[in-house]
Amino acid sequence: MDFILVLDILGVVAFSISGALAGMRKKLDPFGIVIIAFVTSVGGGTLRDVLLQTDVGWLNNMLYVYTILLFALIAIIFKERLNFFRKSLFLFDTLGIGLYTVVGVEKALSADLHPIICIAFGTMSACFGGVIRDILCNEIPIIFRQEIYATACIMGGVFYFALNYFNAPDSIIFVVSFVVVVAIRLLAVVFKISLPDIYKSNKN
Amino acid sequence: MDFILVLDILGVVAFSISGALAGMRKKLDPFGIVIIAFVTSVGGGTLRDVLLQTDVGWLNNMLYVYTILLFALIAIIFKERLNFFRKSLFLFDTLGIGLYTVVGVEKALSADLHPIICIAFGTMSACFGGVIRDILCNEIPIIFRQEIYATACIMGGVFYFALNYFNAPDSIIFVVSFVVVVAIRLLAVVFKISLPDIYKSNKN
Amino acid sequence: MDFILVLDILGVVAFSISGALAGMRKKLDPFGIVIIAFVTSVGGGTLRDVLLQTDVGWLNNMLYVYTILLFALIAIIFKERLNFFRKSLFLFDTLGIGLYTVVGVEKALSADLHPIICIAFGTMSACFGGVIRDILCNEIPIIFRQEIYATACIMGGVFYFALNYFNAPDSIIFVVSFVVVVAIRLLAVVFKISLPDIYKSNKN
Repeated sequence: MDFILVLDILGVVAFSISGALAGMRKKLDPFGIVIIAFVTSVGGGTLRDVLLQTDVGWLNNMLYVYTILLFALIAIIFKERLNFFRKSLFLFDTLGIGLYTVVGVEKALSADLHPIICIAFGTMSACFGGVIRDILCNEIPIIFRQEIYATACIMGGVFYFALNYFNAPDSIIFVVSFVVVVAIRLLAVVFKISLPDIYKSNKN
Repeated sequence: MDFILVLDILGVVAFSISGALAGMRKKLDPFGIVIIAFVTSVGGGTLRDVLLQTDVGWLNNMLYVYTILLFALIAIIFKERLNFFRKSLFLFDTLGIGLYTVVGVEKALSADLHPIICIAFGTMSACFGGVIRDILCNEIPIIFRQEIYATACIMGGVFYFALNYFNAPDSIIFVVSFVVVVAIRLLAVVFKISLPDIYKSNKN
Repeated sequence: MDFILVLDILGVVAFSISGALAGMRKKLDPFGIVIIAFVTSVGGGTLRDVLLQTDVGWLNNMLYVYTILLFALIAIIFKERLNFFRKSLFLFDTLGIGLYTVVGVEKALSADLHPIICIAFGTMSACFGGVIRDILCNEIPIIFRQEIYATACIMGGVFYFALNYFNAPDSIIFVVSFVVVVAIRLLAVVFKISLPDIYKSNKN
């Protein structure tokens, strides 16, 4: 339980810093930066909870709120030096999407939804904070264009239901699907794998 | 009932292909394309259901989900050749907005809302999938700029309440308002009618 | 009570005109202009109500709807001459955000949320209509970049809880926090105060 909380907070740290950096790239003022940090961190889970019509998690979790405010502030103050932590932030971000994928799948599953919908909810929980961040920054969402980000979440969800089908114990399902998301994302970045380019013919 | 289902699925086919095409125009990867197809198809109804605080329809309707996935895939594979089906797709799209307008009006009416609000909900059900598609693609929503798209939906809604006022039977109300939306949209495109240009003075 | 209604409607007038003007700047058609006017006026409160999972206020308040439609129309017809009313509109807008901030704080408080979350909800109620307006117009939200707009709301919220802490009577809390928002916004505009520029080092 404590271990999950640590992963969760590491994810929030990575998301709020990535949001704050995106806001600073657009020359937003401190208020705008904090909003982008916030939305990046909680946007995916909020959309999930609104669609499932369950209580929105962060409204009653001040730990999230303080973490986001603190790390948005840290990002503003140390913006020149955050490059040193780039690899750590990438790792935190990857752990975050791993966790949020599994949590999202489980929340949708407890609402009795179809496995495909549950996988979509897991992916949404992990990825849509970044989508809303990019919309607020007036960019086409980066995860629609690059990288195996969402694919890692989808594969984690697929493993979740594969293991579920074979009646694996809950804790195994949780850990394995989490590891699948993290591993695919790490491998994809290390080996520069991306989804097949369907526009090749246009480039010749 | 079966006839309505056919109309509904034809609408989803048109919306998911139009979404996928919009995504490909922006050079999104396959994941991004599927998301845009999805959002175009279910975005309007989802917004309606969230505002009405009723269950979000597609969460428990796998037929929608499979149709969207299938036709997004078809759009990706056959993208060069979809031009041949342009007229069919336009027709499907028009049938779709006709149906979604009437369904949206009825959902709002069953929540006891004022006729003007019901008409707004009908229009939203039919049009806001396209609005969210355009926002995700970083464009100003096309229905805010061109064509009698939304106006057709609004007129369908007006007929709905006019017939309702004269105590027309439910099935007549349903069919006539559906036909009004479809007819206005078809006529507007055939005769190239658009809303009055309020900027004329600026163009001289 | 009547006085609050007057403030509320003045806010709606200012927001619907500012929305309609934003839509006209983007050369939208009349339908698009009305939608932007609508979203600017009710967007913030709608987001608040969806997140709190309470009924969305304007769905049952036709006075809002008529006011928005009327003033969007007035803005379209008299667009050249609205400049004369610029100062009145600025004042109405400021009264509006003052009221919406306090109402937002109180709605969140009645859902037993933490003071920081309540202040965020007050600010969201007052400011997010404008955020959605700017997203629909394909701009980075202006309140993320300029002016003490959101800061005024946040300060109003802080005063709300400070007075609450000292057990001030409800009516005093209401009036003082309202006045704080209005006064900070007016003073900031008159004296051209903005949030500290954190990008100074990049400009040399």
